[in-house]
Formats: sequence, C-alpha cells, structure tokens
Amino acid sequence: MTSVLYQHGTLALLVPGLLKGTMTMGELLEHGDYGIGTGEGLDGELIILAGKAYQVNGAGQVKLLSPDFTVPFASVHQGDYQVLATYQDLAAADFYQKVTTALASPNVFYSLKVQGTFRKMKTRAVDKTQPPYATLVEASEKQSIFEGENIAGTLISYYSPELFHGAAVAGYHSHFLAADHSMGGHILDFELATGQVEVQVFDTLEQHFPITDADYMSHDFGEDEIGNSISTAEAE
Amino acid sequence: MTSVLYQHGTLALLVPGLLKGTMTMGELLEHGDYGIGTGEGLDGELIILAGKAYQVNGAGQVKLLSPDFTVPFASVHQGDYQVLATYQDLAAADFYQKVTTALASPNVFYSLKVQGTFRKMKTRAVDKTQPPYATLVEASEKQSIFEGENIAGTLISYYSPELFHGAAVAGYHSHFLAADHSMGGHILDFELATGQVEVQVFDTLEQHFPITDADYMSHDFGEDEIGNSISTAEAE
Repeated sequence: MTSVLYQHGTLALLVPGLLKGTMTMGELLEHGDYGIGTGEGLDGELIILAGKAYQVNGAGQVKLLSPDFTVPFASVHQGDYQVLATYQDLAAADFYQKVTTALASPNVFYSLKVQGTFRKMKTRAVDKTQPPYATLVEASEKQSIFEGENIAGTLISYYSPELFHGAAVAGYHSHFLAADHSMGGHILDFELATGQVEVQVFDTLEQHFPITDADYMSHDFGEDEIGNSISTAEAE
Repeated sequence: MTSVLYQHGTLALLVPGLLKGTMTMGELLEHGDYGIGTGEGLDGELIILAGKAYQVNGAGQVKLLSPDFTVPFASVHQGDYQVLATYQDLAAADFYQKVTTALASPNVFYSLKVQGTFRKMKTRAVDKTQPPYATLVEASEKQSIFEGENIAGTLISYYSPELFHGAAVAGYHSHFLAADHSMGGHILDFELATGQVEVQVFDTLEQHFPITDADYMSHDFGEDEIGNSISTAEAE
C-alpha cells in the first residue's frame, strides 16, 4: 500500500510572513484525516485527529474548525498507523531518541501518534497576525506558552529527513491536543508518563505549492535565512 | 488541472553512490511521458520523450530502453506543455536567464521542452559502475564528453527551487536527444540557433523514496556534503 504525506505550502514560506490562507480545510481534509498546520496569519496551531480539525488559538482555547477555514501551511495523511510499543517515563528528548533508534529510518518521512498521559506538557500558540504579516521569528517571539500536568491526550508528530529542512522542519515537528480539549498546541517540551506509540512510514511526499498566490510566486527567499529561522522559531 | 512532477529517489542518494535500480522504467512511465534520469550504477543519461525512454550510454550510443530497465533516480511528468516563444541565437546562460525572467516563478518546479536546432551542443554521459558503486563526484570525473554542431533535437529541462537543492538540482537540469539519435546526454553547454520553447509549471512535487532499499534507508548522509557535491558533479 502506498502511504503518502501531503503537504500544502512549505515551512519556508512562513519565515518571511507569506501567511495568506491558500487552501481551505475542506480541501486539505480530502488528502488526509490526521495532520498538523497553522491558519492564515499564523492563526493558531492546528491538529487533525480522525478527520476532525482543531485549532488552539493564541489564548489557548481549542475550537473545531469549519471547512472554509484557510491555511498557508499544513501536513496531512490518511491515517494507517501501526503500533510500535508502549513507552513509559520518558523526557521528550529521550522519547524521540528511542523512536529514532527503533525505526532506523532517517531518510524518509514518517508520522508518530502517541495516545497517553503526560506528566508534563508544554505547548505554544501564537495570535493571528494581520497584513502586513509578521515574520515567523517575530511571531514566535510573541507566542503564548501553556503548561499541563498529568494530562491525557494525543500527540501527532511528523519526522522529516535533514535534506528537506526548509520544506518542512528537519527532525520531529509535534502538536498536542488534550483529551478534554483543555489545552494543546505546538509542543515545546513534555514528559511522557505512559503512552501507546504508533508509527506510519511514508514512501511519498506530495508537496503542493500555492501557485495562485502572487506573493509566494514572486518572493525572493535569498535573504530569508530559511534554515536558521525555522530552527529558531520551531525549536522544541 | 493539477500538474504533477513525479520524482523517484533524490539527487542526494547518487552522491554517496546509492546507485541500485529501485524502480523499473515500466513503473516510472505510469507517472509520466516526459522526463530525465539515470540507470542503475549511473548507467547512462536518460531522456523520455512522448512516452519513449532513451538512454545515452558512456560510449555515446542512443538506445531505446525496455520496461524492465531500472533507475535509482528519475523525474517524469505527464506532458502538457504550453508554447512560451521561439528563441534564437542564445548561449545557454542567456537562454536560461531569458526563460527565468519570462516565467518569474523561482519558487515552483517547472519543465522546459525546446525543439530546435543547436549551433553547439555539449553533453556528457558516464559508464555504468558496478558495486561497490562510485560516488557521484568520482563517476563524473570519468565522464565522456560529446559535442555536436548544427544539430537538431529536443532539450528537456527541470527547474527546481533553491529550497529543494539536494532533493533535486537547484536551477535547471537539462538532457538532450538529437532528432537523428546521433548524440545526446546530460547537457553541459549549448548555443541555440533557433528553437520553440515550451513550458509546464507544476503545482505539486510527488517525491517518491526507495523505502525497500536497505542501503538507502540506513545511510548516514551527514558526511556527504550533498549540496556541494551535486553542484560540482551536475554543473553546466
């Protein structure tokens, strides 16, 4: 079975603030039922679980998104996860290291789903900016931080090979939603208490570009220091 | 209409010599009728025109390929070119600059097809190497050079955004086949006498990885200096 990761836009286009919503959530969901992303103007952190798209906004509120909500950047796939193992008592860095070692697939894209209880969960979300949009580093400097303790929920992560840093975030890029919807967002740090870890390896990256967005088409990325800016803004 | 560039493998995997044929030509042609690539062990330079796949081998001979021929890396698409213009009397650098200016699409993938007469055409092809395979730079040092004058034929080129250097060759990557099949290969330089230039812009890159190749899956690309090696080996 072919397993495809569909990505609309690139992480790189967020860096200079090309934040126009260029695909609707309705269109995006035709390509998958699990995913992560952000809204127009960096309008919150998105997580898609079993076909339902949720937004964690800059105030930390969780909302179900409508099909006409638009995104500048998102990654989705048709969920076909396989159970890897149940992991317990791991800090984030140790968790990622353990998965990386178990999978030994540094050169392909894959997704992780972790359903469990987290002793600590630290996330961020940013407020929607208006045109002229802020750059990614400017926006991330104004992020709100949220911290949960002993919280049940679901983590969705995408691993991208180093070669694709800029198109995506090299390494792991993870979002979270609490089971009771009390918190969520882009994960900065966590401690896993216990969780079932599932994985899905992709043989294909379907990279879609916003070719009808004149700002994207004509932008000169030469001065944007894409790699460094993404590493700064998306650091765990 | 959605226009998709399908790529099997990455330019990066050629750099350390991961040259096993991991897709058949038959499978590849299901994804397009125009394209370029190379065979297992860098077995020549490939060009696909109107559904027919040709190889220019290290001796400069042009052969029609069978469906069971295998490739480590190739790019193909369903041809739906639009005529851009007829260009005359242009050196290669001036030709590429003129197309780049006319299209003003630095941030998306596109293909060029030029049918015309070339005052000069300079190409290269390398001989098939056997395991343990040579690196891309080693192989390109042993390339054969071919030069034609006042030669009619077809140029197929893919333009890749800078962000994807490594996955592909940033900028233009062009192959040639003479109308009388007397020469062809990876283009190093040319002078166009007169040619009809056609273009096709892609909104999607469908990047396929050889996930069943254990050597690819486990390779550590950290030491390979991918960007520099590709620039050295693929320079026009």
